[in-house]
Amino acid sequence: MPEPSGIVYRRDLLPGDREAVGRVVRATGFFSAEEAAIAQELVDERMARGEASGYSFLFAEAEGNLLGYTCFGPIAGSVHSFDLYWIAVLPGAQGRGLGKNLMAESERIMAVCGARRVYADTSARPQYEPTRAFYRSCGYTQEALLVDFYAPGDGKAIFVKILPAA
Amino acid sequence: MPEPSGIVYRRDLLPGDREAVGRVVRATGFFSAEEAAIAQELVDERMARGEASGYSFLFAEAEGNLLGYTCFGPIAGSVHSFDLYWIAVLPGAQGRGLGKNLMAESERIMAVCGARRVYADTSARPQYEPTRAFYRSCGYTQEALLVDFYAPGDGKAIFVKILPAA
Repeated sequence: MPEPSGIVYRRDLLPGDREAVGRVVRATGFFSAEEAAIAQELVDERMARGEASGYSFLFAEAEGNLLGYTCFGPIAGSVHSFDLYWIAVLPGAQGRGLGKNLMAESERIMAVCGARRVYADTSARPQYEPTRAFYRSCGYTQEALLVDFYAPGDGKAIFVKILPAA
Repeated sequence: MPEPSGIVYRRDLLPGDREAVGRVVRATGFFSAEEAAIAQELVDERMARGEASGYSFLFAEAEGNLLGYTCFGPIAGSVHSFDLYWIAVLPGAQGRGLGKNLMAESERIMAVCGARRVYADTSARPQYEPTRAFYRSCGYTQEALLVDFYAPGDGKAIFVKILPAA
């Protein structure tokens, strides 16, 4: 299936984004309440501090409803590394390439900003294998595993993708 | 040589700490101007937001002069992992165990706060071998290496130490 029709991409934040981000992140079923709160705090940070927050967003919506989004930004202290902090797509909008399109467009924006390496972290637990498979399908490779990082038995997998020079 | 006499440890921030931290970090010669600015921003964050900032400090001083300090805090999204963001000791106060004492006392504080794993990142460049040797001498082991993370040819070494239950 192709990407749902009528998708609009948007980078500037709007007042309703805090709630919409929380809704999308919780709907995935992949994140804890604490993690959903962190996702919303990044929206707050961007709202409060603008570009100085270090957080950029890309929203994908249809008819004004948020279907998915990414949050990314430069890693302080590095010259060319960016972090993909969040990528989430509503379950009902998954399976049609929207996540891949969000990822590709986010990488294009990062590359323009000087990114040559994009890092994405996720859990090493078995139930996150779909997430890891998604990263691999987008050209990311797992570079490190920090055992028991999030909790006993819940390690952190660090993925990286090398971008071509913009 | 034993630790310099008259060392006082302090956790609460004072108005002069922003400047003193910048002075100590720059004096080590191990950090860029950008990194020194980041170190100072963490002081600002703690000043502005208190414990909610997620940044805790331990200062070691003699006669009111800052000789060294650490900055650490819990890693959001983990149940028991802490990050040692900064440890720096004035060159003139090095070699007498002050860094090790700062580290041990910081780990004691983190353990009381529930830390079971402490992470410390540093550059993989040859000139940071003394830093890596210091971590190893404090019981840290290198768990991962992210090549070219900071810059081409400048990888990130991730060290970890498992703390006993407090």
